[in-house]
Amino acid sequence: MLLTKPPGSLGRLEEIAIQLSGMQRSDLPAVNAVYLSIFAADHGVAASGVSAFPQEVTVQMVANFSTGGAAISVLAEQLGAHLEVVDVGTVTESADLPGVIKQRAGPGTANLHYEDAMSKEQLEIAMAAGRAAVERALESGAQLFIGGDMGIANTTAAAAVSCSLLNRNPVDLAGPGTGLDSTGVAHKAEVLVEALARYQGLDQPPLEVLRCVGGFELAALAAAYISCAQQGIAALVDGYITTAAALVAVRSQPAVRDWLLFSHCSAEPGHRAMLEALEADPLLDLGMRLGEGSGAATAVPLLRLACSLHNRMATFADAGVSEG
Amino acid sequence: MLLTKPPGSLGRLEEIAIQLSGMQRSDLPAVNAVYLSIFAADHGVAASGVSAFPQEVTVQMVANFSTGGAAISVLAEQLGAHLEVVDVGTVTESADLPGVIKQRAGPGTANLHYEDAMSKEQLEIAMAAGRAAVERALESGAQLFIGGDMGIANTTAAAAVSCSLLNRNPVDLAGPGTGLDSTGVAHKAEVLVEALARYQGLDQPPLEVLRCVGGFELAALAAAYISCAQQGIAALVDGYITTAAALVAVRSQPAVRDWLLFSHCSAEPGHRAMLEALEADPLLDLGMRLGEGSGAATAVPLLRLACSLHNRMATFADAGVSEG
Repeated sequence: MLLTKPPGSLGRLEEIAIQLSGMQRSDLPAVNAVYLSIFAADHGVAASGVSAFPQEVTVQMVANFSTGGAAISVLAEQLGAHLEVVDVGTVTESADLPGVIKQRAGPGTANLHYEDAMSKEQLEIAMAAGRAAVERALESGAQLFIGGDMGIANTTAAAAVSCSLLNRNPVDLAGPGTGLDSTGVAHKAEVLVEALARYQGLDQPPLEVLRCVGGFELAALAAAYISCAQQGIAALVDGYITTAAALVAVRSQPAVRDWLLFSHCSAEPGHRAMLEALEADPLLDLGMRLGEGSGAATAVPLLRLACSLHNRMATFADAGVSEG
Repeated sequence: MLLTKPPGSLGRLEEIAIQLSGMQRSDLPAVNAVYLSIFAADHGVAASGVSAFPQEVTVQMVANFSTGGAAISVLAEQLGAHLEVVDVGTVTESADLPGVIKQRAGPGTANLHYEDAMSKEQLEIAMAAGRAAVERALESGAQLFIGGDMGIANTTAAAAVSCSLLNRNPVDLAGPGTGLDSTGVAHKAEVLVEALARYQGLDQPPLEVLRCVGGFELAALAAAYISCAQQGIAALVDGYITTAAALVAVRSQPAVRDWLLFSHCSAEPGHRAMLEALEADPLLDLGMRLGEGSGAATAVPLLRLACSLHNRMATFADAGVSEG
C-alpha cells in the first residue's frame, strides 16, 4: 500500500523507519521509550597533558548530570528519555546521587602512554557494567538504547583504540577534543604515537586493544552494543567516543553492526574515518563535539518523526489521490 | 556566564539558539508555537509534460492535508504545530474543508512554456495571500513561520525562477521533481530553455521574473518571507520550491535574509545552487524531496532542543564544575 507521497521522497526518514521496523519485528516501529546510559570514567593518560580540562571535571559532571544541569540532562528531559549515569571508574568515587549507579573498575585507568590502561579483571568489570545497563533498559521496556560518555582525556583513549583497529596514524585521527589548540593536538598525537609504539606489530584482537589503550567507559559501551545486538534492541550511537566503542564491538562481533544506528558526525576530525570504517552514514552533521550522548539525543526526534510518518500517513487509496 | 560544556561544543545548535535569541529579542528564545501554511496552486506548464503525477493530484492533496493523511499533516500533529492550507489557485477549486483557506489568483497559472505565467493582478492576489498567512501566524502568537508548497509541476516553475535569478542553465538546475526519469528530466530542461529564451537579455526585477515564469504558491511564499522580515518573525525555509521563493524575496529585499533559517538540503539537485546563492547552510541533509514544508517541519525539533539547551543548562558556577 503506497503512502501519499512520491516513493522515496522522505529520504533517510523512510530508511530509518524500515530499519527500525525490521529490528522491532513490527509494522509499527516506535522509539517512544528511550533509555540513556552515560558511562563516566577517568583516564590515567590525563597526566600526560592531553586535555584542556582538569580531571576533576569528570566526577563534577556526574553530579551535574544527576542534578539536571548538563546538556544531556536537558535533552533527556525534553525527550522524556530515561537518563542514568554509570560510574565505571572516576578518580574519586561519585557522590551518592539519584540516577547514579556505581559499578567501578577502579579509580581511573592506568596511563596508556606508558602501560596497559587496565587489567583483564578491570576490563571484565567495565564490560559487565555495559551489559547491566542494557539489561535495565530492556526491563524498563525501552525501544532504543543510547550510550553516552563522560571522561576527561577520553578522546585520547578513543583515538588510540581507533588508530589500532584501523591501522591509522594518530596524526590523522587525534583532534582537539574539548578544545586543545594546535600545539595541544600535536602533543596528543605524539603521546599516542609513543603509546601505540609499545604494541606495534602485535596482531591483537579488538578486546585486547580495548584493554591496553582504551578506557572503562569505552569497554562498557562496547559491551553494551554487543548486548543490544544479542538482546535485539536498536542502539543509537553518539559521537567520537561511542563510535570507537562501536568499532570495537563490530570488529569483535560483526553481526553487531546490524543493530546500530548512527546519529551524527562529530566535529572531532577523526570521527569520519571511524564512521567510514563502519560504513555508517549518520543522520546529522551539526558540528557537535560534546559527547554525553548529546548528538544521539538530538537525533531522537528524527527517529520519532520517521516512525510517525511510517505508521500514520494515508495511502493513495485511503486518500483518493491519483498515483503517478 | 558559561554553560557546562566546552565553548562551541554544541555546534549548530548554539548558533541557532543565538540567532533565534536575536530575532526574538529574548534571552530565552522559543519555538513552541509553530505556524505552518501550505500554499497550493496549479501550473499551466504541467501541459508540457514536466511532471510524473497528473495535475488533479494538487487539489486531491489539499483534501489529504485537511483530513490528516499527508506527510505534513502527520508532522504538524506530532509537533503540535498549527497547519493551514491556502488554495492560491488550483485548477478546480478546493472543497470546503477545515483548515483550507481560499484566496485564489486563478485556476492555475498560464503555461510558462509559451506565455507569462500570470498577470500583474494575479501576482498581487497571490502575494496578498502570503502576507495574510503571516498576519494570521502573528495573531495566533506564533514564534516561527513555516511555508510549504503543493503544486504539480511546481519544480519546473521554481527552476525557471532560480535559473533566471542565478543566470544558470536549466540543464544544471532542473531535476526529477516527484520522480521523472532521465528522459523526463531532459525534456523538462528543454521546456525551461525554451521558456527562458523568451526573456533572454531582459534585466528583470525579481518580482517580474516571478510573474513571468513563477507560480501562485511561489508568489505567496516570497511575499510571506518578506512579510516575516517586516513583522519580525523567524521563517524556517523548507526545500526546493520554498528556497526559490526565498531567493525572490531576498533578491527583492536583501534584509529579508536575516529572518530566514534554512532547514534542509533537498535531494532535488538544483537546490544546493540556490542555497549557495543565499549563503545558506541548512541543518539537515536527509535526501528528502517531498515539499509540503516537510523538511522544515522535520527540523523543528532541532530548533526546540537548541532553545532548551540555551535556556536550561547550568553554568559552570551553578554546577560547581571546574572551567578548562
